[in-house]
Amino acid sequence: MQYDQIDKKIDELLSMMTLEEKAGMCHGAGLFRTAGVPRLGIPPLVFSDGPMGIRNEFADDNWNTVGGNTDFVTYLPANTALAATFNRTLAESLGEVLGCEARGRGKDVILAPGVNIIRTPLCGRNYEYFSEDPILTAELAASFIKGVQRFDVAACVKHFAANNQETERLAVSAEVDELTLRELYFPAFEASVRAGVLTVMTAYNRLNGTFCSHSRQLITEILREEWGFNGVVVSDWGAVHDTESPAIAGLDIEMNVTSNFNEYFFAKPLINAIKDGKIPERMLDDKVRRILRLMFRLNMFSKDRKRGGFNLPQHQQAVLDAAKESFVLLKNDREVLPLNADGIKTVAVIGSNADKKHSSGGDSAAVKALYEVTPLSGIVMRLASGAKVTYYPGCPDETHYKEEFHIPSNADEKTRADIEEKARAADEDYRKIQMRLEDEAIQAAKTADAVIFIGGNGHEQESEGRDRPDMALPYEQDKLLSRVLDANPNTVVVIISGSPVNMSGWIDKAPTVMQGFFSGMHGGTALAAVLFGDENPSGHLPFTIPLKEEETGASALGEYPGGETVCYSEGLFVGYRYHDAFNIPPLFPFGYGLSYTTFSLANESFRRLPCVGTEYEIHVDITNSGNRPGAQSVQLYVEPEKKDGSPIRTLKGFEKTYLNPDETKTITFKLDERTFSEFRPHEGWVFVPGNYTIHIGTSSRELPIAIALAL
Amino acid sequence: MQYDQIDKKIDELLSMMTLEEKAGMCHGAGLFRTAGVPRLGIPPLVFSDGPMGIRNEFADDNWNTVGGNTDFVTYLPANTALAATFNRTLAESLGEVLGCEARGRGKDVILAPGVNIIRTPLCGRNYEYFSEDPILTAELAASFIKGVQRFDVAACVKHFAANNQETERLAVSAEVDELTLRELYFPAFEASVRAGVLTVMTAYNRLNGTFCSHSRQLITEILREEWGFNGVVVSDWGAVHDTESPAIAGLDIEMNVTSNFNEYFFAKPLINAIKDGKIPERMLDDKVRRILRLMFRLNMFSKDRKRGGFNLPQHQQAVLDAAKESFVLLKNDREVLPLNADGIKTVAVIGSNADKKHSSGGDSAAVKALYEVTPLSGIVMRLASGAKVTYYPGCPDETHYKEEFHIPSNADEKTRADIEEKARAADEDYRKIQMRLEDEAIQAAKTADAVIFIGGNGHEQESEGRDRPDMALPYEQDKLLSRVLDANPNTVVVIISGSPVNMSGWIDKAPTVMQGFFSGMHGGTALAAVLFGDENPSGHLPFTIPLKEEETGASALGEYPGGETVCYSEGLFVGYRYHDAFNIPPLFPFGYGLSYTTFSLANESFRRLPCVGTEYEIHVDITNSGNRPGAQSVQLYVEPEKKDGSPIRTLKGFEKTYLNPDETKTITFKLDERTFSEFRPHEGWVFVPGNYTIHIGTSSRELPIAIALAL
Repeated sequence: MQYDQIDKKIDELLSMMTLEEKAGMCHGAGLFRTAGVPRLGIPPLVFSDGPMGIRNEFADDNWNTVGGNTDFVTYLPANTALAATFNRTLAESLGEVLGCEARGRGKDVILAPGVNIIRTPLCGRNYEYFSEDPILTAELAASFIKGVQRFDVAACVKHFAANNQETERLAVSAEVDELTLRELYFPAFEASVRAGVLTVMTAYNRLNGTFCSHSRQLITEILREEWGFNGVVVSDWGAVHDTESPAIAGLDIEMNVTSNFNEYFFAKPLINAIKDGKIPERMLDDKVRRILRLMFRLNMFSKDRKRGGFNLPQHQQAVLDAAKESFVLLKNDREVLPLNADGIKTVAVIGSNADKKHSSGGDSAAVKALYEVTPLSGIVMRLASGAKVTYYPGCPDETHYKEEFHIPSNADEKTRADIEEKARAADEDYRKIQMRLEDEAIQAAKTADAVIFIGGNGHEQESEGRDRPDMALPYEQDKLLSRVLDANPNTVVVIISGSPVNMSGWIDKAPTVMQGFFSGMHGGTALAAVLFGDENPSGHLPFTIPLKEEETGASALGEYPGGETVCYSEGLFVGYRYHDAFNIPPLFPFGYGLSYTTFSLANESFRRLPCVGTEYEIHVDITNSGNRPGAQSVQLYVEPEKKDGSPIRTLKGFEKTYLNPDETKTITFKLDERTFSEFRPHEGWVFVPGNYTIHIGTSSRELPIAIALAL
Repeated sequence: MQYDQIDKKIDELLSMMTLEEKAGMCHGAGLFRTAGVPRLGIPPLVFSDGPMGIRNEFADDNWNTVGGNTDFVTYLPANTALAATFNRTLAESLGEVLGCEARGRGKDVILAPGVNIIRTPLCGRNYEYFSEDPILTAELAASFIKGVQRFDVAACVKHFAANNQETERLAVSAEVDELTLRELYFPAFEASVRAGVLTVMTAYNRLNGTFCSHSRQLITEILREEWGFNGVVVSDWGAVHDTESPAIAGLDIEMNVTSNFNEYFFAKPLINAIKDGKIPERMLDDKVRRILRLMFRLNMFSKDRKRGGFNLPQHQQAVLDAAKESFVLLKNDREVLPLNADGIKTVAVIGSNADKKHSSGGDSAAVKALYEVTPLSGIVMRLASGAKVTYYPGCPDETHYKEEFHIPSNADEKTRADIEEKARAADEDYRKIQMRLEDEAIQAAKTADAVIFIGGNGHEQESEGRDRPDMALPYEQDKLLSRVLDANPNTVVVIISGSPVNMSGWIDKAPTVMQGFFSGMHGGTALAAVLFGDENPSGHLPFTIPLKEEETGASALGEYPGGETVCYSEGLFVGYRYHDAFNIPPLFPFGYGLSYTTFSLANESFRRLPCVGTEYEIHVDITNSGNRPGAQSVQLYVEPEKKDGSPIRTLKGFEKTYLNPDETKTITFKLDERTFSEFRPHEGWVFVPGNYTIHIGTSSRELPIAIALAL
């Protein structure tokens, strides 16, 4: 159908609808759907979590699961893992997996991707987001969204905006200056709109005092008018607190977690407000128009709508491919990696994350995975009968019960003493378990041909709804790891987490460290492939790993977690922008990642083009100077001469390339005018002439190439 | 290493071994391993169940599971499913999957395939066996074994011999005449030896009075001396009841289910018997020689031994390919199948087998499947968002608790009355559940665009250790199915079972019936592909479906289940041999199976060749005369003019071929002299000249081509 025909059809439909029918399209009439208008052939709009796979089926009006065996799905790597690949093609391919499976499961809108900036290492949902950098996040999110929407299903970019922590997320006001919003927190949303995202989710939190779902500035002025978004804005589930202000702000659909659907603010209260003349009906009409337009765009009225599919073998291959590129080699001092599978007869695998499945954790990001290969199972499958693999958890984790005792305030002395004694005894029992587990692991570490420690966080640490208390590894893994490294100095350390963990207690002892993420159903397969050299690791850190949480912009210069408000007074100095400007060396910088081969950069050149959109082109040659095939993510950072309180240099481009040994390729970066612009209140993005240095390298702190420009 | 070098090496090793070390190689020293001789570098020999995938890991000396997430594997179609494909290539390919995964999991001997003949529909392990026909079983088993052993792992053909029922299997004596053994129960074992099988498992039962593990006639005279088997004979777990007779009989390894390994008959008692001179040590030496020879054949002393692998994507594809060809279309009167996925908006799936996983059932055939796609999930995945699929169990099954009451013998009248009242009330409650489930299903059947009933047996009916009490469908499925067919006469009926079920109550009402088997982790995917016409069904019945259990040879002419003995007085009249000879029409005959296309046979010819091995060649042209691509299993049966009490005609060849519409191919059957021979005690196989008719067709009762021969 042509657009004018669609608009005509929309107006026709609208003219036939009652006020109640219109309102029914603008709020949850089930936990994951609107009402639809059956008599006019308008179906409900069906939503689903989430970013790592299509969530299990729930009853329409309560949170009981109802899918039986029919809602097992492909479990995707988290966005953090995807960001570590620095690979737009993989982002698009994972988007396709999610879109195809969403459609296959009968969904219209998939609540992904999450594009909030990683502001603090402690945010419980960091793993669902991409990165601390707006460009990396924006570019990958845009590719991901294109992939999703290829299947007649809408992506829903979230959470708009400044939802950078879980602590008090339902009420906290993020206090952020406009420059910082424009340069750091908005670009991924803006890029999503440019990529054609069809729906946007407003965040739970307030932004500068106003609930995001109630903010006309956010939803109408910036999102719609400035960025040209003409899709549907939906609230996070329960992020609406009133009828009039969100209705007027431009919110289209109110969703919630409760089942009193008729009491939702956009249900009876909205109908009443319109009847009472407090809100003009045309405002509701506009919402319905946008929702109907979305439905036409999704081919919801067409018999040729794509069917999608789930658990397809090519989806399993796609998530494996992405997982393989997500592992970041942080250290390999004595080239312990890759392990030689043919030379090893015994492998000791140690650590609480080695055999833990992550798919079912994380609340709205949880997935009922068709299967999940843990790191241990991946290693066992990789080695098959070629070596004997033994596993030692090494420390008690959430599966070990530790009895807790509480002394009543009115307890007499004897009761108190009794309880204290019991608590002491229980503690001692627990310590004994810990000792036994630790000792078994140490013993094994001493004698095995290869020792692989696999620690980090699970979703009992990183999850929606709460932040981590600190950056420390849980379950006293630091202590265990230190002992393991003493027992076998060639221990390979693998940390699986969605956020940076504190490595300072053991990093100097560890010759070989791999950072992994929640990397989907084939995370274990991928890790084994990387450890044994079937794949050459090519991941780069999507976040800085600071020495400690105090050494982050939000903690050192700003507020975190705040109280009723959280003041982002660090401004732009988040992640590497902070470390670089304040000369605080991180443990591992943003963009960092080693390979089993080496690369060199040379022959840089710059030219200005007469085109709009790609005004500047930079070329650089990259050579694989080592002896294995491998991939490198070449990064381009721009440094303005005049800083005026802005960061020293920021990522403006990245290109990933695959090279055989001795192979050389020319990489092209295309930059637009915006690259050299800054946001000025009341003026918008303004090109800033002056002297710039373009730095090219393989991390935010390894930048061997510099090009001086006078613009 | 050359063979003479190996023999020399074996003698060297043997000369260095103590009596105790030798004995340690001949009995379980763990539940699934022998002892090995570490000081001489001789490893233990490691066994594993089973036929449908490598069983989960157990502790060495008890039945606790210890594999964690590391022993999930590919779950294969059962041998009955494989037999229904009539496809040697698939048999080899499934053998390769099993062999590769066995090696991947570090096993030396995989306890498969089971090749016992399906003598009665009620045997609990029928699904683990292939067929009621010795040639079909023999040919597929031979291909399967070749596949397995390609991975430096030994197949273990079982259970030798005449283990055709589970009732009293540990003690019962199968009383079988020699002609019947030779023509019906032995050929698959003989063919396995010819195919190079490296190990054979003796059965639990007695054969003509003697425990199979104790039978010198079976193990030494027939297996080794007559058939030339020079591999290892291992007992079923706990099938040995003495030291001397099995040792002298030629049994090499005694396995058991208990952990008093030193008390096994082949442990201390064997050592003592040798020391006491009751058994010559050279007899033990022979056993150890055979075991060492097996180890050399498996490359157990070589660093180049194959590693194998498990859960490989190609394994998942292979089990899917096999499952697709296993479904047998029994009726399609009004061409309800294939269902048109594009024309269907609602599908009601009904029945207790629709969403049941079978992998974990069946005792030694149980598998910890990486995943299992149920029929319901296969259908949902196939239709994706194109149609709404709803599921109704329709009847309570083993997951519904039905309280049972027992009246103590000394109960007074009041107690008795109370209990009876409670039992009556519980029964009524259960009936209410049944009514509700049934009514929901009937209601759905009336209104859905397509209705698919998926019933049959689970492993709670068909399992090692017990037979079924009768051929009836469990859970009163007959009654439900009858009502469903009344509600929607176009209901597609799918029966999943490993044995024939009684269909007489509803078969006349059902226009469309598909027989499926326990068909592995992709059984549901495969079924959906067949139902919706992505695949054209090509399975043929590997067993006769009689109208009722009384109409089987074992019940009508022989004994089943017998008592201390079970007399096979039906002789050769098992399966179609009985129905044909006694003119008892089966409901569906052996070898039967429809297609969505049609085939015609023509241009038959016969010629005698001057070769040894393939003395006769028969050609016939087959044409796909319908309008879909499809496969057909053309079957060749030989009928002797002189019957002398032998069956009318028996399967002597089968060839599966794939044809596009209008395509014609020439099929060649190669027959050897044995085809026209009969077994005569004291003489062996003797060629019988005379007049024969060769029948060619597509089931044991659809044989349009006849070739008269005078030999």
